Amino acid sequence: MPPLTVEHWLADYRSGDATPETHLTALRRAIAADDSAWICVADESHLAGQLAALGERLAAVDGDIDRLPLYGVPFAVKDNIDVAGLPTTAGCPAFAYTPETSAHAVTCLQAAGAVLIGKTNLDQFATGLVGTRSPFGAVPNAFDERMISGGSSSGSAVVVALGQVPFALGTDTAGSGRVPAGFNNIVGLKATCGAISTRGVVPACRTLDCVSLFTLTVDDADRVADVLIDFDPADAYARPRPAPAAAVPGTTTHWRLGVPDSPEFFGDARAQKAFEAAVADWRALGAEIVTIDYAPFAEAAALLYQGPWIAERYAAVGEFIDTHPADADPAVAEIISAGRAPRAVDAFRAEYRLAELRRAADAAFAPIDALIVPTAPTIYSQAEIAAEPIERNSRLGTYTNFVNLLDCCALALPGGFRDDGLPAGITLIAPAWQDARLAALGRDWQNHRRWPLGNSDRPADAIPNVASPEPPPDHIRLAVVG
Amino acid sequence: MPPLTVEHWLADYRSGDATPETHLTALRRAIAADDSAWICVADESHLAGQLAALGERLAAVDGDIDRLPLYGVPFAVKDNIDVAGLPTTAGCPAFAYTPETSAHAVTCLQAAGAVLIGKTNLDQFATGLVGTRSPFGAVPNAFDERMISGGSSSGSAVVVALGQVPFALGTDTAGSGRVPAGFNNIVGLKATCGAISTRGVVPACRTLDCVSLFTLTVDDADRVADVLIDFDPADAYARPRPAPAAAVPGTTTHWRLGVPDSPEFFGDARAQKAFEAAVADWRALGAEIVTIDYAPFAEAAALLYQGPWIAERYAAVGEFIDTHPADADPAVAEIISAGRAPRAVDAFRAEYRLAELRRAADAAFAPIDALIVPTAPTIYSQAEIAAEPIERNSRLGTYTNFVNLLDCCALALPGGFRDDGLPAGITLIAPAWQDARLAALGRDWQNHRRWPLGNSDRPADAIPNVASPEPPPDHIRLAVVG
Repeated sequence: MPPLTVEHWLADYRSGDATPETHLTALRRAIAADDSAWICVADESHLAGQLAALGERLAAVDGDIDRLPLYGVPFAVKDNIDVAGLPTTAGCPAFAYTPETSAHAVTCLQAAGAVLIGKTNLDQFATGLVGTRSPFGAVPNAFDERMISGGSSSGSAVVVALGQVPFALGTDTAGSGRVPAGFNNIVGLKATCGAISTRGVVPACRTLDCVSLFTLTVDDADRVADVLIDFDPADAYARPRPAPAAAVPGTTTHWRLGVPDSPEFFGDARAQKAFEAAVADWRALGAEIVTIDYAPFAEAAALLYQGPWIAERYAAVGEFIDTHPADADPAVAEIISAGRAPRAVDAFRAEYRLAELRRAADAAFAPIDALIVPTAPTIYSQAEIAAEPIERNSRLGTYTNFVNLLDCCALALPGGFRDDGLPAGITLIAPAWQDARLAALGRDWQNHRRWPLGNSDRPADAIPNVASPEPPPDHIRLAVVG
Repeated sequence: MPPLTVEHWLADYRSGDATPETHLTALRRAIAADDSAWICVADESHLAGQLAALGERLAAVDGDIDRLPLYGVPFAVKDNIDVAGLPTTAGCPAFAYTPETSAHAVTCLQAAGAVLIGKTNLDQFATGLVGTRSPFGAVPNAFDERMISGGSSSGSAVVVALGQVPFALGTDTAGSGRVPAGFNNIVGLKATCGAISTRGVVPACRTLDCVSLFTLTVDDADRVADVLIDFDPADAYARPRPAPAAAVPGTTTHWRLGVPDSPEFFGDARAQKAFEAAVADWRALGAEIVTIDYAPFAEAAALLYQGPWIAERYAAVGEFIDTHPADADPAVAEIISAGRAPRAVDAFRAEYRLAELRRAADAAFAPIDALIVPTAPTIYSQAEIAAEPIERNSRLGTYTNFVNLLDCCALALPGGFRDDGLPAGITLIAPAWQDARLAALGRDWQNHRRWPLGNSDRPADAIPNVASPEPPPDHIRLAVVG
């Protein structure tokens, strides 16, 4: 069987069944030129340069591939993330530039042995949750080409769902790293804000932007995140990971999970049924389900799109949009141009309200291990989005918009399938630096559901739940409030 | 001798030489009706109510006054801080309202046994560093009535400097709790942002506002701050104090102190000479003095007044100013009205720059225990401020404006006298939650200089430096980055 997961790729290299030279060259060549998920595929010389560097890295660790945690593992990055020598388009050819330095996240991955295959399509300037707002073409859903893939990290999600690469980087400001994971039956990891450097990423909302990660399994996500979470003092919004004690999950046997008191599906009965089935399955797994007051989360989600944070998008690319009106997607240009309007006084008032909502969210999280929500409340066809491009897009952020505003981490997981055969993702959400707890929950879920890997019919491997042990007694537990 | 410090008051009560009834009633009556430092003095019945409550508190602790850490100690609060049943004017009679609930900070003090004597004058809406912007009259400097007292907490500083009360609350957004301490030879403590609740305070810049504290000695400041630092979850900007290990000073024998590389005095040679003498005295005390790159601090200071944070003042009271143009001080109205102008995009861009400056400040602080600066670069007469009310005011914030923006704590201390006999304060500044380190430094300084208490000729008592011991081995040191 061809390798699908990071674990498979590493096993093939360890067994000697594969070498990066043969397998990655073949993988690169197999990508169709008209595949709208990709904006740019590394050419022969770019790949050869990486393989030479990989050879040097391997020599530096005495040829022991176990000392390069991502040795020879291919990956893709969303095209708003810099890779030295390849153009960064952010989904807008007129905006493109070719950086001399790779984003810090890309540098971390390559230092661990990973090999970049190419750069993926996105909703222009990472502005959208649909995957259709790109001059490089809409990216179809991996399960049904009439349906949207979700965005803005559409290409990165789909190339993982289709098994082209075992992992890919996205970005996530309002849900761009989670909605497409949910629509394509894969894992989308949005770590604590500031844990993964955003240096070398085209900003969307600088105070909220995160680099995110798509994989087929929870273990793969955890493995790659370990490489990516590397405090970068040159990123002013990066934060050092607190002492390990703060991130240790309490127990893996008696989870307490919160669900919204009146979840919104915009009339989509299939989505509602799938979410209810997933919650029932968590109960079957032994979790205690408690209903929580969802009002502060809903209000924070609405603040993001109706409030002044849109001015951050204008700060990032507004001048470009103003001077290149014909070069931007009309929906994207309309949204970003609106960022000129809010006053600073509106921004501060929204910040005050957000501070209150953060306090309310803290209280909601106190008695639970995590919140479970549908990753998106519904899904649309490409035609439905074309007919109503802004309102339907904004609905898709119902369960994702608030996460970065409230300084949470999130893990989008396959959550089963709807009656129409489309994936129905769920997302686990917890306060900052509870990433390890979400990973432990995700492993339990993966073992219980054994979901098929992306759109393949191969089930996820059973994995031991390797939750970290209780901290030794000379550690103290801390609540770190940022 | 009449009691001056908190310590003196407590000693008098312990010895039985005084009772709250006799001493506080006399104190209240001794305040002249035309004293511009006071806006409102508690009347007989308000005081009687407090004394009755104090009696009940004492009964509840079995009559042991040592269990009420501020038993019978009189205090004043700046009149932008709510006291139940007394009007809050914020320095603007047309704005006044009478709250039913006291500010959280006032409640903490009264629960510890302290007794409120009255409310003090301020630069209107806490907008100013001069102490002259008030319809209740300018508050003269305690040492020379022609000179300014500094603001905005002018009255609270002067009533402490004159020995009317041993401590008073101020507020501090851009230096309002430090500049008047420096101009009146007293201690001004501006704890870590969020350590003292601001619930029940008229906002100036909500994201930056702090409640501050004036005392005659460092020990008094530490004692009262211990009562005030009480996490208030109902204040969205309050923060819990981290585990004690983070706040333990390293050593009291080999301080390393940073001084600005090219300090600005706006041509005031007396101020420069006094600061140089203070630095020489720290060297004599055994401290190592290192010159630091002051550029990030200077840039952050300029950001506060030239940047979008002025919109916060508009958010707080702009609507009142718009609808009551004749009721506001002209300089205050001009400043606050300017807060309408900035756009949200300007606010976010300033926030991005500030994040970079915070990182630069972290680097500057890494090798030192604290930064020492002049509390203000110069001082002006009331006539000089009247002649140029805005520009000269803004100069006074040179060494204070950046502190809350960069999430620092600060301790303003008497620093000796200029050749013209006016006080020349110095301020110690350190990153968030290093308050205990600043207190330890301040005690060393007080023991070394034995400054006169306020404008009296009584020197500060010698105090043992009771710096916390090294943490026991089962504690870990943490850098907590918020």
